[in-house]
Amino acid sequence: MNGQDLNLKALFLGPKSENKETFEKYLKMLFEDHSEWRKNYHPEDMPIIKKNDMNEKDFGMTSDKMEEVLTELSVKLRSKSLPWHSPRFLGHMNSETLMPAILGYFAAMLYNGNNVAYESSPGTSQMEEEVGADFARLMGYKDGIGWGHISADGSIANLEGIWYARNLKSLPLAMSEVCPELVAGKTEWELLNMSTEEILDLVAKVPEKLDDLKDKSARSGKNIQKLGKWLVPQTKHYSWLKAADIIGLGLDNVEAVEVTDKFRMNTEVLEKKIRELAAQGIPTLGVVGVVGSTEEGAVDDIHKIIAVRDKLAKEGIHFYVHVDAAYGGYARSIFLDEDYNFIAKDELKEKYLEHGVFLNKETEWPSDDTYEAFKAISEADSVTIDPHKMGYVPYSAGGIVIKDKRMRDSISYFATYVFEKGMDIPALLGAFMLEGSKAGATAASVWTAHRILPLNITGYGKLIGAGIEGAYNFYTYLEGKEFKVGDKTIKMHNLTRPDFNMVDFVFNEEGNTDLAKMNKLNHDFYDEASYVDGGLYNNDFITSHTDFAVPDYGNSPLNFVKRCGITEKEWDKEEKVTILRACVLSPFINDKEVFNEYMDKIHTAIQKKLDKIYDVR
Amino acid sequence: MNGQDLNLKALFLGPKSENKETFEKYLKMLFEDHSEWRKNYHPEDMPIIKKNDMNEKDFGMTSDKMEEVLTELSVKLRSKSLPWHSPRFLGHMNSETLMPAILGYFAAMLYNGNNVAYESSPGTSQMEEEVGADFARLMGYKDGIGWGHISADGSIANLEGIWYARNLKSLPLAMSEVCPELVAGKTEWELLNMSTEEILDLVAKVPEKLDDLKDKSARSGKNIQKLGKWLVPQTKHYSWLKAADIIGLGLDNVEAVEVTDKFRMNTEVLEKKIRELAAQGIPTLGVVGVVGSTEEGAVDDIHKIIAVRDKLAKEGIHFYVHVDAAYGGYARSIFLDEDYNFIAKDELKEKYLEHGVFLNKETEWPSDDTYEAFKAISEADSVTIDPHKMGYVPYSAGGIVIKDKRMRDSISYFATYVFEKGMDIPALLGAFMLEGSKAGATAASVWTAHRILPLNITGYGKLIGAGIEGAYNFYTYLEGKEFKVGDKTIKMHNLTRPDFNMVDFVFNEEGNTDLAKMNKLNHDFYDEASYVDGGLYNNDFITSHTDFAVPDYGNSPLNFVKRCGITEKEWDKEEKVTILRACVLSPFINDKEVFNEYMDKIHTAIQKKLDKIYDVR
Repeated sequence: MNGQDLNLKALFLGPKSENKETFEKYLKMLFEDHSEWRKNYHPEDMPIIKKNDMNEKDFGMTSDKMEEVLTELSVKLRSKSLPWHSPRFLGHMNSETLMPAILGYFAAMLYNGNNVAYESSPGTSQMEEEVGADFARLMGYKDGIGWGHISADGSIANLEGIWYARNLKSLPLAMSEVCPELVAGKTEWELLNMSTEEILDLVAKVPEKLDDLKDKSARSGKNIQKLGKWLVPQTKHYSWLKAADIIGLGLDNVEAVEVTDKFRMNTEVLEKKIRELAAQGIPTLGVVGVVGSTEEGAVDDIHKIIAVRDKLAKEGIHFYVHVDAAYGGYARSIFLDEDYNFIAKDELKEKYLEHGVFLNKETEWPSDDTYEAFKAISEADSVTIDPHKMGYVPYSAGGIVIKDKRMRDSISYFATYVFEKGMDIPALLGAFMLEGSKAGATAASVWTAHRILPLNITGYGKLIGAGIEGAYNFYTYLEGKEFKVGDKTIKMHNLTRPDFNMVDFVFNEEGNTDLAKMNKLNHDFYDEASYVDGGLYNNDFITSHTDFAVPDYGNSPLNFVKRCGITEKEWDKEEKVTILRACVLSPFINDKEVFNEYMDKIHTAIQKKLDKIYDVR
Repeated sequence: MNGQDLNLKALFLGPKSENKETFEKYLKMLFEDHSEWRKNYHPEDMPIIKKNDMNEKDFGMTSDKMEEVLTELSVKLRSKSLPWHSPRFLGHMNSETLMPAILGYFAAMLYNGNNVAYESSPGTSQMEEEVGADFARLMGYKDGIGWGHISADGSIANLEGIWYARNLKSLPLAMSEVCPELVAGKTEWELLNMSTEEILDLVAKVPEKLDDLKDKSARSGKNIQKLGKWLVPQTKHYSWLKAADIIGLGLDNVEAVEVTDKFRMNTEVLEKKIRELAAQGIPTLGVVGVVGSTEEGAVDDIHKIIAVRDKLAKEGIHFYVHVDAAYGGYARSIFLDEDYNFIAKDELKEKYLEHGVFLNKETEWPSDDTYEAFKAISEADSVTIDPHKMGYVPYSAGGIVIKDKRMRDSISYFATYVFEKGMDIPALLGAFMLEGSKAGATAASVWTAHRILPLNITGYGKLIGAGIEGAYNFYTYLEGKEFKVGDKTIKMHNLTRPDFNMVDFVFNEEGNTDLAKMNKLNHDFYDEASYVDGGLYNNDFITSHTDFAVPDYGNSPLNFVKRCGITEKEWDKEEKVTILRACVLSPFINDKEVFNEYMDKIHTAIQKKLDKIYDVR
């Protein structure tokens, strides 16, 4: 298999529905297959809905009503949806999704399996098992040891991650109650500072005590406040606040770790903080590293977080590591060769050439840190990964992977009606996750995409590469760009060189040193470049925006703000900078020709919007 | 609007794909609408995928791969899916789903809105708002005061319910810290026994203190263990154990309340238990009433739970009430007239006749208790309702409704990037629920179904009625039925008269008094009537099964077991009864002709399975 055999253009409906005939062909095929399947399940059974029924007046009235509502639906969708499919949309983490993923969802939805239990979904449950194994392999977890599944979304996966951490880390305290001989001589501090592996190995020694241990674990409600702090980067996504709230650890136990001016967690500060807590006798329950932050696409230095963990472990301090790679997780496939081995750094360039990952030799990616960060994900205890982001499948599909499937024992439940004792564990998914009922169609959608695009350099690596290269093109294009508006010059400034495929930028009037004024300009621009004032279907360029404010960001944006010509004093006064935010997911603007064509259009659109804002016509 | 104008047969693809042409017509229309929408967004933009690209070798290879995988998908789906569409399937809560709901999902999936924020889904976010309002009206909550939304599934909705209860009930303790004057003179017991309304009214007095109050509420991690017990029926669904675990209240704070031999919560025991707890100084955080239990379809006496609440409130004891109507929630529509008023009991029969809810005058439903239980849902604080169950929409669609939208303040979060200050609150859904990203397509699917089938007697009431009447037919048919197998007589016994649309039953050999033997027979039957030994596509009759065992059920099954001819001594020895379980969701077997036709087939199938089990050929 070679990435050169993969043509991304064959996998999307296309910005102009170029592959419409193909889509329609398979849509028809899959529906036909299903409807004939229905008909031929016991072919001797007669139809229930008869011609006579169809001639009834109420049948006609109901049909008319259905047509009326479906028409209204289509009207609403067409007038009030975002044109994710066009390269004119460079905002949220959206683009068009994979044609086979849409078709896979549609087909499986007709059969409507429920992956809560094998019994309700033999086919799609197997697909979810395979997808889970794909995730585990993607993260570099051991075959047959790592385990994963699809979840409703990244917030739910993050909540499941903290659930794992909380219940697991509480088990040693349970041991000291249930089977004290197992942890004889250990202090409470030692019990609260055991690694996942140590804990699992101990639990494995007393299989007959498992239920008792679980009963005395954090699931009892006890000891939760003893477990210590949950550390997240200062840029913390609100899903982590929700998760800490819901899980009962509480926001008082969430500590934010400063980020650098690249918006990555400062791991020196991290180490210092954990040591300070330890000095006060407070354990660190866990640390979240983010691979692809929501606002900046920043990739935390996971390797450095792991290094801190391993270093402190030698001093008897141990914390759980969860990697929130909801956004960036799939990008690990760009580092895996045809056999899923992590590619050596000095072979990357050559491999990218061999598989056509980047079209342009000048594309400089990844940085050394980003390379090491992705590599080190394999050392984390659990990882969030969202197929509905960089998996290019439709909403809603999140996912979680754990390093060691024995961890599941700490969160598992069984209900008699869905589960049959003695069945294989993967057949009882509802017992091993936060949710209950879930669409088999989601698994089918992700499975279909994974089977066409392997999670390595020959498949997803190439698709993700297209976005990264598009972002690189966009970043290079924007840097220092100027627009004339009346007698003013408006300059563009990039926030950082992207770690991933997100480009954050601002406009500022040349010579302007007033931060409030700069913020207003960018906010006005957002209004024009969004549904707010810009309209949707007639909008020429759509993007998204964000605010970096001191309460969340500290002074990490200061260097950037200075580069825009704003003084520190202004920053101290405003404490907030408004930023425009473009995730480049389009699989098409890595191509320089397409890129240039669309940049001309976007240039014109920006000029028009700025003219409007400054009331210049 | 009259229910007589609604023909359910026009709304399903049909067991024999009878409405195949109609389905295909709208499928094509909705896809055509979408693809032309893409093309005409900036019609001046040229295609990106060109004829030349399509002639490339790698394009062909990729297309071939896609066809290969989609074909494999279809093979897997057809060979490993359950035939929900056929009346030969009477097991889990599944039947075919509404054609317009499938089409609505498909259409909206093409646009792929994300209902986490209005900005990412203007059209489908509005639909979700409307669906939430539908839910609130269905439950009898005040217009503009009640509020609801779609969630990933019922487990997540239940978890959100307990999250509301936990955070809300902790607010008075926060008040005593943040604004003690608000609760001056109140003891801790009094603070822990305030009603939702009292709490919300107090919070409303200090809007400027809201954030401080939230910071000191249970979301801080503090005081959770003070809140008291969470009471669920003994037949507790495992989602409630998960929820108590996750939310940090802990399983040690979950108390099971005995059920009667109708498998409804015994409300006398409930009252006694709460009083006993109170006598020990332990508050009751909340009580869960179940409307449609997972194993029996039992409807708890919600009116009696509310009566206990109101009675104890006068004595200074107050608990939160959550109704878990994941299964039965939509059935409240059978009690609402064209104007959504709850129909008086003595007008029900007439109304059912007027709107064609039941086809057979002899159908006796509801019982007085069931009527009162549904009526009293309007008095609960929050309700779980799953569209993917009795809403007849595809997975995954759960839902939650709250009585007073001010409750949202206790769980809300804001993230800068998705939310724009000053926008309307319903536009920021991710800030007011457990999940983050979620499919706009789910909302579109539910919305489409609701617009065609109003949530009253003219729409969903009639659809749900068809299932209830089918269940009534099945119940009547089974009771006392006998099969001859060799020289043995096998008799059928119903568990209870159904509160809803579920029929539980067992087989027993005439004269057999051995419970283990009876259990084995029913388990063997399940194996034959499921994918285990019976196969799927060639199976003549498929059902589901469950076990009622003493640890969960106490002796509530004893009366039933006795009716089957088993002694109390046997029950005390085995402590478990295996039961077959048929949810009757088919919208077609209310019709006596169809029913009889299928019962003949099912009769033959049962005979065949029993012959096989007894090795009689």
